[in-house]
Amino acid sequence: MNVLAHRLAVPLDEAALAARLLDGFRAGSLDPLGGVTRPAWSALESACHRLWAEAGEAHGLARHVDAVGNCWLAPPGLGDAPAMATGSHLDSVPQGGNFDGAAGTVAGLLCALRAARDGIPLRAVALRGEESPWFGAPYVGTRAAFGALEPAELATPRRDSGLTLAQHIAEQGGDARAAGAGVALPEIQRTTMFWELHIEQGPVLLDRDLPAAAVSAVRGHIRFPRARCLGEAGHSGVVPRHLRRDPAMAVAELLMDLDGIWARSLQEGNDLVVTAGLVMTEAEASTATRIPAEVRFALDIRSANADVLDGMRGFLARRCADIGRSRGVEFTLGTRVEAAPIRLDAAGHDAIQAALATPYSTVSGAGHDAAEFARRGTPAAMVFVRNAHGSHNPREAMEVSDLMLGVEAMYAAIRARA
Amino acid sequence: MNVLAHRLAVPLDEAALAARLLDGFRAGSLDPLGGVTRPAWSALESACHRLWAEAGEAHGLARHVDAVGNCWLAPPGLGDAPAMATGSHLDSVPQGGNFDGAAGTVAGLLCALRAARDGIPLRAVALRGEESPWFGAPYVGTRAAFGALEPAELATPRRDSGLTLAQHIAEQGGDARAAGAGVALPEIQRTTMFWELHIEQGPVLLDRDLPAAAVSAVRGHIRFPRARCLGEAGHSGVVPRHLRRDPAMAVAELLMDLDGIWARSLQEGNDLVVTAGLVMTEAEASTATRIPAEVRFALDIRSANADVLDGMRGFLARRCADIGRSRGVEFTLGTRVEAAPIRLDAAGHDAIQAALATPYSTVSGAGHDAAEFARRGTPAAMVFVRNAHGSHNPREAMEVSDLMLGVEAMYAAIRARA
Repeated sequence: MNVLAHRLAVPLDEAALAARLLDGFRAGSLDPLGGVTRPAWSALESACHRLWAEAGEAHGLARHVDAVGNCWLAPPGLGDAPAMATGSHLDSVPQGGNFDGAAGTVAGLLCALRAARDGIPLRAVALRGEESPWFGAPYVGTRAAFGALEPAELATPRRDSGLTLAQHIAEQGGDARAAGAGVALPEIQRTTMFWELHIEQGPVLLDRDLPAAAVSAVRGHIRFPRARCLGEAGHSGVVPRHLRRDPAMAVAELLMDLDGIWARSLQEGNDLVVTAGLVMTEAEASTATRIPAEVRFALDIRSANADVLDGMRGFLARRCADIGRSRGVEFTLGTRVEAAPIRLDAAGHDAIQAALATPYSTVSGAGHDAAEFARRGTPAAMVFVRNAHGSHNPREAMEVSDLMLGVEAMYAAIRARA
Repeated sequence: MNVLAHRLAVPLDEAALAARLLDGFRAGSLDPLGGVTRPAWSALESACHRLWAEAGEAHGLARHVDAVGNCWLAPPGLGDAPAMATGSHLDSVPQGGNFDGAAGTVAGLLCALRAARDGIPLRAVALRGEESPWFGAPYVGTRAAFGALEPAELATPRRDSGLTLAQHIAEQGGDARAAGAGVALPEIQRTTMFWELHIEQGPVLLDRDLPAAAVSAVRGHIRFPRARCLGEAGHSGVVPRHLRRDPAMAVAELLMDLDGIWARSLQEGNDLVVTAGLVMTEAEASTATRIPAEVRFALDIRSANADVLDGMRGFLARRCADIGRSRGVEFTLGTRVEAAPIRLDAAGHDAIQAALATPYSTVSGAGHDAAEFARRGTPAAMVFVRNAHGSHNPREAMEVSDLMLGVEAMYAAIRARA
């Protein structure tokens, strides 16, 4: 019996290890203002990577840090052989919760330990900076591993430190040139498929009383953060309806049109969410007795179905034109931010769903590292675990027992696909 | 031929006198920041009263200032006899236009001169402070003449000077006690009917290419300056429709419901205007990717018909309750400000309308001194004169030729009712 086999023979209390790691991450990153703060490429993020890797090493896995700072754990005999990988990120948003990302790194570690025991080739990975607040863009660790960062991104200062991304990569022992080389790191090239467990950021599993779900796709979006509707100010009492150019009523009509097509889309079985996160008449001039001259608003339209997004794009343009004509206002949608929906690996999805006690499939409304792998050509699959209060806030609440059910399903799927 | 008759025999160029007075008012009150500023009970307002009164005296009318500072002009023989009166106010809002109020004082003077010539008993009056910015409430000069000011109002400081209304009344030679005595001044008691010409503050006459109109009523209102809709914040991408409590969509639905009943009311011939002058998601937290937690909004619902306002009050309450239930939000309408519609004198209205080359009747969406007379039991009638760009801003634009057509109609009606 070699050393590894000996270590793996010791019965592992997976739930206790998961709790210990999650508590360790939390303890090191409590923010005086509330929640946890683990900045991307910070010494704190590196310390969490070490805590995570040492737990793997203690059970016989071998640690390897890639050129941009992502930390990999592999069974000792795997070497540079192609294999599947599983993990997530260890940074958090400022004053965020403890489980967004961290839960997936713990799940990855547990799956890698099981795989080593079962002789299945699988690596675990703790990725760097996935959250967008730090450098103004998401999936930075994954994109760096794909060699896909732009020079401008590498020169972007981190919001808290003022040091650039390139400086932070170097500070944590990495090589910023590799992050922007235009070629994926060897660690990515030898990854045949990526599996990620993540807390659900919405309330669906809680509402359905389910511990976990397979994720079929990540919603794409059409987003207008700075839309405007221009009308004409007037006295609320003296301008008759037919002479008004009221942007508040015009925006309300547009929102109700979007709300209507949203309801119809759901009835037809199409995935869609529509949000106006910001609606603002003029800050200074707005009063009860004045028809506003301008309304600023934001729209975020998301769907897992590219055809639905295309349809919404056309619907929105037509309704803005029609309402503009009928109400004498002018819509200016402004900057458009788009992302295509991403299909996750169908076989991986089906294997996860089949492994759940109550099979359930959902879509992700937010992006994840797994989606970035899929978008760049590496098949990827995801498990969502029940979580209360959403994510990116101190009230994130995942039960370790749910995490373990998610690990169970993901590992069963990994075995099935190995 | 007595002196008065002699003076009146000199052909009067009314348009030239009107232009000279309006130019004189403007020249004395230009605001360095734009427009004109004539504060209520200011030395400047008093100077304008004098300019106006001296023009009347030059043509044989007798000046009389009442106990609160309103200035009256009468034919010398009229004494204390009951008579109709006509006029308006001479204050303006800060950085306002030159014609709101002033046009009516000039019209009143011209009508009084015609009446003196024709032997019709009629007084002209230049009222004090009608605009609400100065002491936080409107029609102060008229209400003071009715003895109807509250002690709190008399103790209110003027926004620019810091001196109280009582101090300003005294400073301009008046008696603040009379303003709050609870008894109308003799000048009001002997006024049998009040006629007021005013610029239209909306765009209807301009749109219809009409110089003037008879006014049948002043709209009442139900106003909610500080309404709120409370929902629940969430991630725009991950909360499905049926689990949302989105106050932005809820307010949009409420506005479209109000818009719909508004359109139907007009089709049924009912007077109505509906305005949401303020719609605001949270100032700090609002972003494109967050379902808002709260929307603040304001509603102003006006109608010349009290039954329509009653109907709208009930409709609004029902829709808030229904939308609250269906969308999981809570509407809190907050402070309600109400004013009943005011019918102007029907015979006066009809006489004005009959005197117009193209008879036209409209309603006033804003309050006026005439409405305050009517509300307090003195019959009142109004003429609107075409005006561009609304009122209370430097771009008010009335042609003296339109003013003269308004004077023509109002005087014809005064003659008819004398």
